[in-house]
Amino acid sequence: MSGTKLYEGKAKILFTTDDPQILRSQYKDDATAFNALKKGTIAHKGEMNCAIASRIFQYLESQGIATHFIQQISPHEMEVIAVKILPIEVVVRNIAAGSICKRLGLEQGQLLKQPLVEFFYKNDELGDPLITDAHIEMLELATPEQVTQLKQIALSINQHLQEFFKRCDLILVDFKVEMGIDHQGKLLLADEISPDTCRLWDQNIADPSDRILDKDRFRQDLGNVAEAYQEVAKRVLQA
Amino acid sequence: MSGTKLYEGKAKILFTTDDPQILRSQYKDDATAFNALKKGTIAHKGEMNCAIASRIFQYLESQGIATHFIQQISPHEMEVIAVKILPIEVVVRNIAAGSICKRLGLEQGQLLKQPLVEFFYKNDELGDPLITDAHIEMLELATPEQVTQLKQIALSINQHLQEFFKRCDLILVDFKVEMGIDHQGKLLLADEISPDTCRLWDQNIADPSDRILDKDRFRQDLGNVAEAYQEVAKRVLQA
Repeated sequence: MSGTKLYEGKAKILFTTDDPQILRSQYKDDATAFNALKKGTIAHKGEMNCAIASRIFQYLESQGIATHFIQQISPHEMEVIAVKILPIEVVVRNIAAGSICKRLGLEQGQLLKQPLVEFFYKNDELGDPLITDAHIEMLELATPEQVTQLKQIALSINQHLQEFFKRCDLILVDFKVEMGIDHQGKLLLADEISPDTCRLWDQNIADPSDRILDKDRFRQDLGNVAEAYQEVAKRVLQA
Repeated sequence: MSGTKLYEGKAKILFTTDDPQILRSQYKDDATAFNALKKGTIAHKGEMNCAIASRIFQYLESQGIATHFIQQISPHEMEVIAVKILPIEVVVRNIAAGSICKRLGLEQGQLLKQPLVEFFYKNDELGDPLITDAHIEMLELATPEQVTQLKQIALSINQHLQEFFKRCDLILVDFKVEMGIDHQGKLLLADEISPDTCRLWDQNIADPSDRILDKDRFRQDLGNVAEAYQEVAKRVLQA
């Protein structure tokens, strides 16, 4: 495969292609957590996440969500539309888990009355701080119109993903997405959707640790990390 | 003075009076910073802040802002309307200083293009975390209508305070207010406005440390803390 390395993130590498509007996204086995304070690898994660994300992007496209996905071109690579990523991590939460519990005093596993959308400033040096609409405007990270769109799209993705994962007997606890702007100025869902970026609980298991099928197994040293990703891949590819 | 102690905060004590709609607010010399990790006293702070806050509440009332202030009844006490304080600290910033610089990578002293309103969850245990409108709704800290009102009132207070402090040769960098709901459901500016809750810079001094006339002198061990409060009191009472 040709192409110049354009950007290397924690979980993926982006390469140019012959077409300036198209990039090659290569999924890595590297895993990081806690703003990269914890590092490791998960066997075959690149392939599993590439397969999972490809299937989910296809599904979301079929539901009318515009994504950067073009096609999967190898077990750990996909072609995507070149976008300018907004420096905003958009988090949608259905159930309280992880950082929000400590931050706001919520109970782990507490069902939220309605999906909660949060924005974080994508900035490793600052530790990806929580930001408000007013901060986004002040820092000029996006226009107020884009912020409104981000929320609407995030909630719509949440609805479609909840339905999709339900068919996989998976509960979508929360997830993080990144969005980008293509050369026509259109907002596209970018990055990836996978057990790296979603909290997914097995709906048939009650035990709070056993049911976890996402990166929390890595974060919390729960073991069977690759097996969990494999289980998600199996279910998602059959859905 | 009679009355039962109703609530003791870091800087004030609230007592009941014969009238259930009226409370007595007693200003203390105690000073705290960094969520009470740093503690001390500032000589005569209670009297100075009570005088400053009384003058400012009167001024804001004259400008159409509804406050809890009734009257000053002793050098360190005022009568106030009984309100249910919303557990939200409303911060308005005109210039970047303090926590926001570290949090969002802004330069100390950087002028903001427009006043920024931030909400913090008034919760010592959690360290008063930043919250968004969506968090306020989720935690049921206020209604969406109240949130809209809080922002409008905060920006209006900011405008009036900037004008007032300009007459005192003081630059209003930022300030924190708390608002409460009276027995009729009306939102009133409560708590206090003083060098404990505002960042105030002497407009005639260029040196970044020398110009500080607020609690940052205590936070940063800059010395002449009481003298700075005294200077603000002198200017405010003459304005």
